[in-house]
Amino acid sequence: MNIKNGVEYIQSLRNLKPTIYYKGKVIEDVTCHPATAPHVRAAALTYSLANSEKYQDLATATSHITGRKISRFTHVHQNVDDLIKKIKLLRVLGQKTGTCFQRCVGFDGINATYSVAYEIDREYGTDYFERFKKWLTYVQDENLMVVGAMTDPKGDRSRGPADQPDLDQYVHVVDRRADGIVIRGAKIHMTGAVNSHEILVMPTTAMDESARDYAVSCAVPIDAPGVTLIFGRQSNDDRRDNLERIDAGKPSFGAVGGEAVIVFEDVFVPNEKVFMDGQTEFTGPLVYRFAAHHRANYGACKTGLMDVLIGAVSYLAQIQGTAKASHVRDKVTEMIHLCETLYCSSIACSAEGWPTPSGGYMVNTMLANVCKQNVTRFHFEIARLAVDLAGGFIATLPSQYDLQSEAVGHLVKKYFSGVEKSPTEYRIRIARLIEAMTGGTALVESMHGAGSPQAQRIMIFREGELNRKIEMAKKLAGIPLRET
Amino acid sequence: MNIKNGVEYIQSLRNLKPTIYYKGKVIEDVTCHPATAPHVRAAALTYSLANSEKYQDLATATSHITGRKISRFTHVHQNVDDLIKKIKLLRVLGQKTGTCFQRCVGFDGINATYSVAYEIDREYGTDYFERFKKWLTYVQDENLMVVGAMTDPKGDRSRGPADQPDLDQYVHVVDRRADGIVIRGAKIHMTGAVNSHEILVMPTTAMDESARDYAVSCAVPIDAPGVTLIFGRQSNDDRRDNLERIDAGKPSFGAVGGEAVIVFEDVFVPNEKVFMDGQTEFTGPLVYRFAAHHRANYGACKTGLMDVLIGAVSYLAQIQGTAKASHVRDKVTEMIHLCETLYCSSIACSAEGWPTPSGGYMVNTMLANVCKQNVTRFHFEIARLAVDLAGGFIATLPSQYDLQSEAVGHLVKKYFSGVEKSPTEYRIRIARLIEAMTGGTALVESMHGAGSPQAQRIMIFREGELNRKIEMAKKLAGIPLRET
Amino acid sequence: MNIKNGVEYIQSLRNLKPTIYYKGKVIEDVTCHPATAPHVRAAALTYSLANSEKYQDLATATSHITGRKISRFTHVHQNVDDLIKKIKLLRVLGQKTGTCFQRCVGFDGINATYSVAYEIDREYGTDYFERFKKWLTYVQDENLMVVGAMTDPKGDRSRGPADQPDLDQYVHVVDRRADGIVIRGAKIHMTGAVNSHEILVMPTTAMDESARDYAVSCAVPIDAPGVTLIFGRQSNDDRRDNLERIDAGKPSFGAVGGEAVIVFEDVFVPNEKVFMDGQTEFTGPLVYRFAAHHRANYGACKTGLMDVLIGAVSYLAQIQGTAKASHVRDKVTEMIHLCETLYCSSIACSAEGWPTPSGGYMVNTMLANVCKQNVTRFHFEIARLAVDLAGGFIATLPSQYDLQSEAVGHLVKKYFSGVEKSPTEYRIRIARLIEAMTGGTALVESMHGAGSPQAQRIMIFREGELNRKIEMAKKLAGIPLRET
Amino acid sequence: MNIKNGVEYIQSLRNLKPTIYYKGKVIEDVTCHPATAPHVRAAALTYSLANSEKYQDLATATSHITGRKISRFTHVHQNVDDLIKKIKLLRVLGQKTGTCFQRCVGFDGINATYSVAYEIDREYGTDYFERFKKWLTYVQDENLMVVGAMTDPKGDRSRGPADQPDLDQYVHVVDRRADGIVIRGAKIHMTGAVNSHEILVMPTTAMDESARDYAVSCAVPIDAPGVTLIFGRQSNDDRRDNLERIDAGKPSFGAVGGEAVIVFEDVFVPNEKVFMDGQTEFTGPLVYRFAAHHRANYGACKTGLMDVLIGAVSYLAQIQGTAKASHVRDKVTEMIHLCETLYCSSIACSAEGWPTPSGGYMVNTMLANVCKQNVTRFHFEIARLAVDLAGGFIATLPSQYDLQSEAVGHLVKKYFSGVEKSPTEYRIRIARLIEAMTGGTALVESMHGAGSPQAQRIMIFREGELNRKIEMAKKLAGIPLRET
Repeated sequence: MNIKNGVEYIQSLRNLKPTIYYKGKVIEDVTCHPATAPHVRAAALTYSLANSEKYQDLATATSHITGRKISRFTHVHQNVDDLIKKIKLLRVLGQKTGTCFQRCVGFDGINATYSVAYEIDREYGTDYFERFKKWLTYVQDENLMVVGAMTDPKGDRSRGPADQPDLDQYVHVVDRRADGIVIRGAKIHMTGAVNSHEILVMPTTAMDESARDYAVSCAVPIDAPGVTLIFGRQSNDDRRDNLERIDAGKPSFGAVGGEAVIVFEDVFVPNEKVFMDGQTEFTGPLVYRFAAHHRANYGACKTGLMDVLIGAVSYLAQIQGTAKASHVRDKVTEMIHLCETLYCSSIACSAEGWPTPSGGYMVNTMLANVCKQNVTRFHFEIARLAVDLAGGFIATLPSQYDLQSEAVGHLVKKYFSGVEKSPTEYRIRIARLIEAMTGGTALVESMHGAGSPQAQRIMIFREGELNRKIEMAKKLAGIPLRET
Repeated sequence: MNIKNGVEYIQSLRNLKPTIYYKGKVIEDVTCHPATAPHVRAAALTYSLANSEKYQDLATATSHITGRKISRFTHVHQNVDDLIKKIKLLRVLGQKTGTCFQRCVGFDGINATYSVAYEIDREYGTDYFERFKKWLTYVQDENLMVVGAMTDPKGDRSRGPADQPDLDQYVHVVDRRADGIVIRGAKIHMTGAVNSHEILVMPTTAMDESARDYAVSCAVPIDAPGVTLIFGRQSNDDRRDNLERIDAGKPSFGAVGGEAVIVFEDVFVPNEKVFMDGQTEFTGPLVYRFAAHHRANYGACKTGLMDVLIGAVSYLAQIQGTAKASHVRDKVTEMIHLCETLYCSSIACSAEGWPTPSGGYMVNTMLANVCKQNVTRFHFEIARLAVDLAGGFIATLPSQYDLQSEAVGHLVKKYFSGVEKSPTEYRIRIARLIEAMTGGTALVESMHGAGSPQAQRIMIFREGELNRKIEMAKKLAGIPLRET
Repeated sequence: MNIKNGVEYIQSLRNLKPTIYYKGKVIEDVTCHPATAPHVRAAALTYSLANSEKYQDLATATSHITGRKISRFTHVHQNVDDLIKKIKLLRVLGQKTGTCFQRCVGFDGINATYSVAYEIDREYGTDYFERFKKWLTYVQDENLMVVGAMTDPKGDRSRGPADQPDLDQYVHVVDRRADGIVIRGAKIHMTGAVNSHEILVMPTTAMDESARDYAVSCAVPIDAPGVTLIFGRQSNDDRRDNLERIDAGKPSFGAVGGEAVIVFEDVFVPNEKVFMDGQTEFTGPLVYRFAAHHRANYGACKTGLMDVLIGAVSYLAQIQGTAKASHVRDKVTEMIHLCETLYCSSIACSAEGWPTPSGGYMVNTMLANVCKQNVTRFHFEIARLAVDLAGGFIATLPSQYDLQSEAVGHLVKKYFSGVEKSPTEYRIRIARLIEAMTGGTALVESMHGAGSPQAQRIMIFREGELNRKIEMAKKLAGIPLRET
Repeated sequence: MNIKNGVEYIQSLRNLKPTIYYKGKVIEDVTCHPATAPHVRAAALTYSLANSEKYQDLATATSHITGRKISRFTHVHQNVDDLIKKIKLLRVLGQKTGTCFQRCVGFDGINATYSVAYEIDREYGTDYFERFKKWLTYVQDENLMVVGAMTDPKGDRSRGPADQPDLDQYVHVVDRRADGIVIRGAKIHMTGAVNSHEILVMPTTAMDESARDYAVSCAVPIDAPGVTLIFGRQSNDDRRDNLERIDAGKPSFGAVGGEAVIVFEDVFVPNEKVFMDGQTEFTGPLVYRFAAHHRANYGACKTGLMDVLIGAVSYLAQIQGTAKASHVRDKVTEMIHLCETLYCSSIACSAEGWPTPSGGYMVNTMLANVCKQNVTRFHFEIARLAVDLAGGFIATLPSQYDLQSEAVGHLVKKYFSGVEKSPTEYRIRIARLIEAMTGGTALVESMHGAGSPQAQRIMIFREGELNRKIEMAKKLAGIPLRET
């Protein structure tokens, strides 16, 4: 682990020169720019935890390639225990940051590509697996942050990759040279992209033969020539950008992970960093494995966020003098219930993990999809309950400038007070935290990150083994299994 | 109607001199200030519609006091037809503004106070009803906008008004003079306050004898000496304040109604504008009637907003090429279903309206509470479905500055395009509209405006006539009604 | 009204000679047979109420044809007030019977056929409307009970009426003679059939030209030659058949309406009782109008049933000493809330009623479909809450024979007691009532009566006016209505 | 394992002479009586599976006391693997029986009492643990079926055990002799009681000092003098009792487990079979541990039942020609999703298992409670979806006597047919299976078995660690942990 902690991670970012735009201007240094620094801080915690006595066991692992101690975020899962430790790590990080710490995307990309590269080689006699291991060893030794780049823009969604009016709507190979390939296109919604070291490109969907040029996986440095990043907007991002420490809700961290578009304008990738090129029948497995890992994770990090939200409304109820009301307790109970129901699916799909031919471990696909499907429901419901318990003032509160104003500050302090002795500023801070965690971007990310709800439903139906279930029913009803 | 249309309304506001703070600074002219102008525009539409041939029948009424044509927003409902027309008017306004047009609060305050003042006089021989009619005639003739000021800060919610450590947590009479009273305290979450002409003060809860000084209702001009307004924050208000016409989502209108704290620092109110002073047993009826009217309205204006949201996601689905997918159609169906279920309760509580002794008509209280309770559930669920259908890009879109940038504008246009021929900017505009209508403030307002969910549940239980229902059950089960 | 009350209705049934099978045997007299008598009693109440001073205004109407006083169940709605009175009548009957009183099906069939016959004549110059009015006058004057026969068996649901392997899966005309037609097929799930006087046959779905012989509507006496009825099973029907007055839950009435298959084996119908024959383009309107009326009604009778259920669990909570627990009150509140939400849609679709060209009034179709869709959800949820509050003993209680047994009766009485002084038998009776109203048939009927859930969703989507809603959204987002 | 298979189990029951009443009469032989035989058959399968090559690993275990091979249903869990195998075993049994196989109650009672007896001894120097191990060895070696007897009648629920007007509403010690104790009272809802060998009595709730005589745990043979059983009713039990193989839905098995009241009329229990007597502070742990194990199990056996139901509706959709409709597939997807969400919590609370001081393993209490809470919601929702997909005919179908009748059998066959070639009887059989599994008793049992919903909520709130969560929120909002 060349990068040993959060501080070194931040320093390492300063050595990169990615091309980043935000609100029409260039971001020179992501570690200082107010729009990106909070997201850098959240990612930095994934580095810091590796040195924490309490969390070291969760945050690090032993490389099965080199035997060296590595960050768990660069590890290929070797058993069920690895899968479960990951879940616990993510929940802790969710609790500590109250937001997305971004490093799972590359983590899951590594695990998916690792096992699939192995299987491509087995089929075609290629050497993707060795290439990948070499690159992975570099990532592990340096302890790099990798952005897993899967989601393409897709243009007209009623058409496939090779059937678009604009052929660049999915990343594809536009040139093949002796020493490498040239790719074009874009990946959107890229969490943590602006503060990653490497991009791991992966196809976005299962493809057929017509889309050979689109079946591409490779690694690209974040500041490679031809790579441009455009950093997106979030709810209330101006408060973050204006350094409004109270009104931003989370003074240290952002709303979610800090998403960017990554544009590839004819970017050259040397052969040793290409891990798939044209094996369309392996796009499905790669996507589904990545998705399954990533969906499993959402039941972990989001429960961490929900823990924070439950704590926030409980604290606010104390301040407001309502903590003992039966309906308040019942709603808090419901929040806990939904949160832990979600957690169960992350644990369960890990406990039911299985080894791929490469030795890398996969979560149970059905249960991982079930997990993410519940995220898309429960996060909204928990937010609804939090908003209910918090009260309407989270949407009408005067700004921190009024709180601190000479003219009206005393009025804000007087008329937004709660129970005696609890300072009004604390009440306002916790209200702003709830506001930040229940509105807009935070919920949209839960809905669509790791795949939109319908994507999970397709998998759940597909893995439902209906024929086996039909047999069970027929047996019980006294109907012969084979009807003539 | 002295103020005849939206333009005259805006001009009338310029003649007032209220004291308004926002983000630590004074707002001099609400009609121009970027923070308040969008809310002024929404309220102005309540004036404009009175001149629309199509909507005139809904937007105006005939005063039962003067026989003159007045804005419906200043009318005392005289029959079921009035109640139903109001509902239809509010839905239309919701469809046209996509936001809160603010004028219902005073409207409902007028209707509640009217009938209660009549009943106080009947009990005590006071002349509140005549005072009120006189003030109301002025409001009708001038066509003023009235902010219905009910919600007090409440401090420690485990204690009543007269039992607070700080006695000003509920508005109360601090002095009684020959010619009037002096009031102190604050009202919070006051929708439309900064662009109203008059404040109608009402008690916030049912009170007992110990709280005599808190049982006060009166009218106060918005720029009366001692009145200070502090305008609150909303989700993404900076985009509004920065005049970001695309990123704000609704270029002309605000997120919700524009809420403010109204502080009364020893404000004098002449006797002719005092409509209740000390009749604690009438605080309950006043609050419940105001609440019932207001709760009924939420099923009307919010269905207007939901109509917009359903249209927005349907349009976006067309642009994205997904409009015919069965799961898309099913989710749109669900959104319509919830929207119309809500509308039903507004219509039903109106159709079941009844006359108070004053002649003013009330909605059915049970059904009005049921209506609002559903708002607190369905708006979140509809928002969830809208977010599902819209896709994750509403949370990761680059800003309008990037869209318009020379450096990367072409990339944004290319990679956020949809089906052929539909301009990317339209896709982005509709995405920002959905973002604005599904996150943060918009939903919090639905949850808590017109009373928090628990407030409705208490009323629903109370009006449930359990004894009558128990009798029905006993009869059917063959159990004697009178057990011995 | 030749039949003046419940007793006369029961006598009138004894004059009929329908062919009815049940559990493999013939039912000779439906008024005495334990399987059918409870359903006869429920229908009889629709007759009795016409003489009740309290309910007369709801239960009767003035015929717009003859000017004579008639049962509302034979009336063609003439205005919104008629539609609303019907809703109130149905809720009262639901409260008094706790079950289906069966007479709405014919009632709705009458209203749908009336307006459609008028429109067919207008198009084709036929005389169906006069035929229908003549038959209806007979029904009104005699005060007959009519079973509205719509639902066909449908065989293979992936095929239409004329495309079935067995052409009889939909009722159709097999012969046309000078004096009438001959029909074959069956109608299933026919509520109240065995104790009706007349059958009103209607097509079951919108049909195209290929299905001309299937587009048939006519009236047939219940005991016409060739008509056979097979009475279906219900949950716990044996308790009813064995006259177990305690264990049956509702000693006087049945679980639901008493459904039967009506088989038409080449039944002759004279021309004057034929109201449609081959006008396929009118099958859609007839079905949708019948369905809309019927769906509206479900929000009325079922709320009556829910009232009983709410009363039953409230009473049981008193007996068990839990009535004051906050979670009990909250669940009762939720039951009331759902019940009244449902009621709102019945009232609303009536308040928004509109006249057809015939003068007969229709409910608002969108809101009526919304109403029924909610029945399919809320009845299950209310049942779930009732089961929660009742406790597990409703599923494990010893039988009434044990309660009355010399050997163990004292043990049952001792160990199923509640609070002091409340007899154990009352607790058991109310438990059995809850059992009867929350399990099996009762809920299935709510789900599928008046159309399965998907049928409503299709209508809701179709009537959603998406284009109008898209325009609203575009206006607010600043997108031109006509894109070029 | 003295009893080696299902046949031997059935024979073993014939050697017992319990006193059982049902519908006012005595049941002489539970293995032949039509009311009890189906339940005996389901329990027998727990014996048969031990000999199945495929399931042996799940169905048996090695006794940690004797080292001998035993039925898993008599095993004390020694590690996480044991807990997970149990879950898988229960799901398989649910799939094979479609009902309750009853043996978990004793199984969970054994595990709870084992660990608590150890802790009582540690505290008081008693020898309950040795007594218990001795009895358990007997149970393991003989391979007995044990009914875990926890639920007391409770009388007036607003009063505690020692505060009832009738002191027998909770089982208690009425006499203490040198050689044993005498107990009086009753246990209700006792699943599998009539076909068990032994009763394991446990207290029903956490008790305080005032209830010393009620803090009793002991083992009693099912046919001990003074023990009387009264077998309860279930939905449609008459069909079962009348051996209606088609209409009963599940020709071989019952609706649920077959519940009985067990009355103890001064039953003597020798000291060696007493495992707790008066240690009130251990009643809480015993109840909570039993409950946690039992709640965990509900997420396993019920998912087995749901699998059957999903299979049944899928098969019926095929027969009816609707299997490919998008809304059908979507509802089946939802059923699978809910089923697997539930399964996740059973797996998760097992994967997070922990050792008690006795060495016996416990599930994670929070997650086990979450599991059961979801059962009380999902089973109803899955039933609702099943009823939706099945269609209304499951509530109106003619009886099997009509199907087989000479007079009308051909009409039933004709008019209840589906797609070509699929016999109508199969369609009816599967419809009856769905009817049996979605109505009445089946759902009530899911709601209340292993504790009513509110019982879980209390535990979920209690274990929610709100203070830790409040700290997380404060940290993120920048509020000092210790306010001064």
